[in-house]
Amino acid sequence: MHDFPFFQKLIEEEIRNLSLPEQPSELYDPIRYMLTLGGKRIRPVLVLMSCEMFDGNISNAIHPAIGIEVFHNFTLLHDDIMDKAPLRRSKPTVHTRWNTDVAILSGDTMFVQACQLMLKTDQTCALPMMRHFLETAVKVCEGQQWDMSYQTAPKVSIPEYLNMIELKTAVLLASSLKCGAMIAKATEEDQQHIYDFGKNLGIAFQLHDDILDVYGDEQKVGKQTGGDIIANKKTYLLLKAQEVGTKDQQEELAHWLTVEKFDQNEKVKAVKNIFEKVRVKELSKEVMEQYFNKAIEAFDKISVASEKKSIVKSLAETLMIREK
Amino acid sequence: MHDFPFFQKLIEEEIRNLSLPEQPSELYDPIRYMLTLGGKRIRPVLVLMSCEMFDGNISNAIHPAIGIEVFHNFTLLHDDIMDKAPLRRSKPTVHTRWNTDVAILSGDTMFVQACQLMLKTDQTCALPMMRHFLETAVKVCEGQQWDMSYQTAPKVSIPEYLNMIELKTAVLLASSLKCGAMIAKATEEDQQHIYDFGKNLGIAFQLHDDILDVYGDEQKVGKQTGGDIIANKKTYLLLKAQEVGTKDQQEELAHWLTVEKFDQNEKVKAVKNIFEKVRVKELSKEVMEQYFNKAIEAFDKISVASEKKSIVKSLAETLMIREK
Repeated sequence: MHDFPFFQKLIEEEIRNLSLPEQPSELYDPIRYMLTLGGKRIRPVLVLMSCEMFDGNISNAIHPAIGIEVFHNFTLLHDDIMDKAPLRRSKPTVHTRWNTDVAILSGDTMFVQACQLMLKTDQTCALPMMRHFLETAVKVCEGQQWDMSYQTAPKVSIPEYLNMIELKTAVLLASSLKCGAMIAKATEEDQQHIYDFGKNLGIAFQLHDDILDVYGDEQKVGKQTGGDIIANKKTYLLLKAQEVGTKDQQEELAHWLTVEKFDQNEKVKAVKNIFEKVRVKELSKEVMEQYFNKAIEAFDKISVASEKKSIVKSLAETLMIREK
Repeated sequence: MHDFPFFQKLIEEEIRNLSLPEQPSELYDPIRYMLTLGGKRIRPVLVLMSCEMFDGNISNAIHPAIGIEVFHNFTLLHDDIMDKAPLRRSKPTVHTRWNTDVAILSGDTMFVQACQLMLKTDQTCALPMMRHFLETAVKVCEGQQWDMSYQTAPKVSIPEYLNMIELKTAVLLASSLKCGAMIAKATEEDQQHIYDFGKNLGIAFQLHDDILDVYGDEQKVGKQTGGDIIANKKTYLLLKAQEVGTKDQQEELAHWLTVEKFDQNEKVKAVKNIFEKVRVKELSKEVMEQYFNKAIEAFDKISVASEKKSIVKSLAETLMIREK
């Protein structure tokens, strides 16, 4: 069994060795740029780890693993245009450094290349895995659309929010694990279990992110807390506070969500104050833990010896306590 | 053997019956809108005609045929954003009627759906056909990038231009025919011949378009001629005139390409005057006919009885003389 850094290194090497054409450079330079911006490479590592856990041949999984990473970066590239994000990993985004047209088209090309990489595997599983990958891709697009729609929606319910983060974030993590299992020819049941593990872990992971943005240790998280509050982002915490708050608290929240000129510190302090009164941190952690437990429950059903499962399980645990 | 209108009707029916999800409506409404804007449905008809010509089962080809049409419409949707086009088939473009974000994301989703449709066929050919389709998709993206780059490039050579229209337009026509042949299990040689037929026909077709924009019958073409001249579009005609013109003529062309305020009729008349002096219409027609002949040469090599080939051949001829 290999650990996270081992697989991470393998992925970085493969990405460095990806042979992209030189021309047209305005198409391929942004792709090279995007793929070497870094990142934790969690999704491709999950493909490889899952494949190894099910006794599969890693060499059949390496290209699909890169395919999922290329797909993930394609979604980031197009999302950055939609979010008008100037920076990604402290570097200019593609649409800022080049322009929107270049960002659209190199994103499109990345998606084609992701599909090509998904097919570079054992022929018996290429087709079912491709089908599964495309189903996932549709869900990710739907998740992004819900996310955009909710930004301007007057009201978003908690089930709607949970469905959105499942589609936008969790299914690709789940799918990464399932692809590894498919390549290793795991049973249908085990494929489903590891998918459910990834999906629930992904939702827990996103809820954790929401919590960290308000309550994280700024040094460990690597950014100032309160960013979501300042930006009026509809996180689980905000939606929950809107749901359980008293009428007065709801009105105060509505005020902070609509006021255009404000002192950032004052706004964060005021909203956090309401959060505390309605115990939103505890309520959020409770739900996060429910999803985490569901994930572990699914994982425990997988019919693989526990010593082979330990690395994936401990990775899941590490991810959840990372910057708490 | 069935004719063009028969297949066209079949395609229209299939597109009407495509069951797209209702929600999120901002994702799927633009897709429905785009797919029902109309068009001649040439590409999917080519898939079906080619399949039938090689004695294949049409029912295995119908979904991939729609897949190619969905892919084609995805490229139009994203191209319209890049070209800032307000209208498509006299209706508002998606990014105009909705917005750019919606256009990017519903385009992405269309591409995923195109891939899903390509896989809905006989299992023995789904994988090789998918590979071929993805190779084509990369070429189409490259063609679009060259087209964008050439719009601002100081100088574009004729080989560069021909390569661009091959990638942007011709390979998808070629690929449509090849997919039909693959589904019908035609020999590798015949697959190559019909691909070469489509590719050369596609280039001839685009050159024909360039000629029609200047010399077409306005009533038959359905739009005013001279549009490419007014927009400084680097067509075969312009590039050829720049190549073969005298120094004076080159300078006059350069003037019309850079002057910002001008009378449209005067510009068209002046440029057409140079075109006539250097016989650019005749030179363009010559090259167009060379490509058309190459197409027919490849087609004649296909080892299928000529009575089965006649419909595809006559379609090719009809397309070339359509609005002349």
